[in-house]
Amino acid sequence: MSIKELVSRKARLVKEASLILYNLSTEVKNKLLKKLIRNLNKEVKNILKANELDIKAGEKNNLSKVLIDRLTLNEKRINQMIEGINDVIKLPDPVGVIFDIKERPNGLKICKMRVPLGAVGIIYEARPNVTIDASILCLKAGNSVLLKGGSEAINSNKKLVEIIKNSLKELNLPESSVEFIDIVDRQAVMEMIKQDKYLDVIIPRGSQNLINLIIKNSSVPVIAHGEGNCHIFVDEFANLKIAEEIVFNAKTQRPSVCNAMEKLLVHKKIAREFLPKMVERLKKAGVEIRGDKETLKIIKDIKLAKEEDWYKEYLDLILAIKIVDSLEQAIKHINFYGSHHSDAIVTEDKERGDRFLREVDSAAVFVNASTRFTDGFEFGLGAEIGISTQKLHARGPMGLVELTSSKFVVYGTGQIRK
Amino acid sequence: MSIKELVSRKARLVKEASLILYNLSTEVKNKLLKKLIRNLNKEVKNILKANELDIKAGEKNNLSKVLIDRLTLNEKRINQMIEGINDVIKLPDPVGVIFDIKERPNGLKICKMRVPLGAVGIIYEARPNVTIDASILCLKAGNSVLLKGGSEAINSNKKLVEIIKNSLKELNLPESSVEFIDIVDRQAVMEMIKQDKYLDVIIPRGSQNLINLIIKNSSVPVIAHGEGNCHIFVDEFANLKIAEEIVFNAKTQRPSVCNAMEKLLVHKKIAREFLPKMVERLKKAGVEIRGDKETLKIIKDIKLAKEEDWYKEYLDLILAIKIVDSLEQAIKHINFYGSHHSDAIVTEDKERGDRFLREVDSAAVFVNASTRFTDGFEFGLGAEIGISTQKLHARGPMGLVELTSSKFVVYGTGQIRK
Repeated sequence: MSIKELVSRKARLVKEASLILYNLSTEVKNKLLKKLIRNLNKEVKNILKANELDIKAGEKNNLSKVLIDRLTLNEKRINQMIEGINDVIKLPDPVGVIFDIKERPNGLKICKMRVPLGAVGIIYEARPNVTIDASILCLKAGNSVLLKGGSEAINSNKKLVEIIKNSLKELNLPESSVEFIDIVDRQAVMEMIKQDKYLDVIIPRGSQNLINLIIKNSSVPVIAHGEGNCHIFVDEFANLKIAEEIVFNAKTQRPSVCNAMEKLLVHKKIAREFLPKMVERLKKAGVEIRGDKETLKIIKDIKLAKEEDWYKEYLDLILAIKIVDSLEQAIKHINFYGSHHSDAIVTEDKERGDRFLREVDSAAVFVNASTRFTDGFEFGLGAEIGISTQKLHARGPMGLVELTSSKFVVYGTGQIRK
Repeated sequence: MSIKELVSRKARLVKEASLILYNLSTEVKNKLLKKLIRNLNKEVKNILKANELDIKAGEKNNLSKVLIDRLTLNEKRINQMIEGINDVIKLPDPVGVIFDIKERPNGLKICKMRVPLGAVGIIYEARPNVTIDASILCLKAGNSVLLKGGSEAINSNKKLVEIIKNSLKELNLPESSVEFIDIVDRQAVMEMIKQDKYLDVIIPRGSQNLINLIIKNSSVPVIAHGEGNCHIFVDEFANLKIAEEIVFNAKTQRPSVCNAMEKLLVHKKIAREFLPKMVERLKKAGVEIRGDKETLKIIKDIKLAKEEDWYKEYLDLILAIKIVDSLEQAIKHINFYGSHHSDAIVTEDKERGDRFLREVDSAAVFVNASTRFTDGFEFGLGAEIGISTQKLHARGPMGLVELTSSKFVVYGTGQIRK
């Protein structure tokens, strides 16, 4: 079977399964998730064995320490997966919920009902826990899922999918509710994104290059999870103590994630007071500082930031600082150079804060809080399949509700159109 | 300038304009719409002159009477456009509305704010009124718009766009808030759908072939307005008088539109009682009837429906009838052969009605009402840019709110991530 045939066959199976999942009760879906917990618990040893194969292969292929760490499973991490399933069991089922109820003058009662999206395709990289996390969210929302994981975690992923399929089987649910493409070839991704006949949406997670490739070539609708070039603007009316804590947290607490701060904008009126102490603290934490010309007048021993720095997501202990003349300039800079992910202002002036919130065109905008809060759990969604950086359908952290669609449901008593 | 350069230049101009529209107040947007009304009123004669050129060209090119009628403007139709603008002025501005407000245990206040989508691309055919209708909806929602109208109405469209641009100019708003691609070449569409750098969404209206071509090739997210192969199922527990009125209305009141009924499913238990009178009435109204084998046993002098009939959107006075054994069979048939647009059940049994609403996977599902009600005005949205037949972002009639996105807006008091 060619790659094209194999991918298309799995996509079709997933679509067929989605028709059955469409009508599952909450009770059955939760029963499935509980069964999955039991089966994962039973198979811990076998999961770790499969994972060891991936780790050994990774070491042989000289994967970086960070990547090896990302693909490593241990009992603690498996328990975290299981905890995650327990959390999703507790979440209310979005499917079937009726909302936006209206009665029209002709007596028609018009509402919307939440329904599953259908068949979801997920393309992801190293971390094997995504195999479980993404599958359970899709299943709870009544969707089937076609997974394409990274080659590094292939053995772990296959084992985890086997356990999901066994759990489906034991409950007489279609095993193809979750399918996994185990072909280690970019062509498999290229075929997957052409399956518009079977897939309702593709959610890619990974490098911006991979995501751009998918956006350019997919005939399936895409919800992109792009990069985060996040800014914090310390306004002239900021409480500088609060500003210092927020900047330090957003840069250093977990620099490798998409909601970490990459750029610091400082109002010129408080730059001389704020920057020296701030930079000293960041440097002590190992942060490399770059700055524009004005910053270099205040902080001497740092590199000049280049034009390309302002576009960049470092995902590392690097920070570029720019001094701005006004709130307007800060907003313009963020909208022009940013990636429209998460951006914050620190200010005590309510009007200026509101203006920043209104005019900065990003998935999440903050007043007086760290950009690190952009996250499904932190935003109270209960779980997260990722963070959308596009404007259609879902923007920002995506939870269960964002994995559904809706339909208009109309109750009549014989109405006809005049 | 090549077609590619020209399209890309207009897309860039539209994107730039969108950054200014993003922050317009409701007052300014309504002022613009009022200015447009005044300018349309002033230019009625010139609009009709431009339209005459299109009609003459159409007659020369042997366009069908229906198409000539669709592209014809007269004073009444221009007044309808103006009425439409007045309606949109009265609609509440969705932009800036705050919703889904939550307070988290750490004190963060997390809300969503409606924001414009940005730059919208619209691809449409014959009717010049879409030039005005689509533009005013986009502008009221704070979006700029790149229009690609059909070649048949090119002179009318250019004149209408000129009037919109003059209205923008008179209020010192960017003229490129509305741009029109006046190239009569399919390549212009193909270039437009590659402008993902500048356009946030493409809304195609037209034949299913055109829409499929766009879906397959667009790198801009698409909200498809596909065809309507709409069903009515007359259940064994239907009130047959109500069923007769609904079926007659859905088939004959306006057969050329996407929410007209194309297929009639009848429960076998009431087929002999219901069909003869129903078919007689439909035939009298000029409807050609086709039927499956079981129908032919009851109604003699009709054509046998072929397999392909069940997939087809006739948009004409043609109806195919199928007799089904059960509610389940009706639902299965609709989900398999239908286009997931609008489908209805006629029944007095509440449980069976609810099951139909839940299990039929269409943009709009009805109990005891005509499918003809699937429409932005009828559903109380106040206006409509079209009817989405896809599941992401918007499904069913799309109004002003569906032309917006949202962002998370977070109010803190110095919170950092632990």
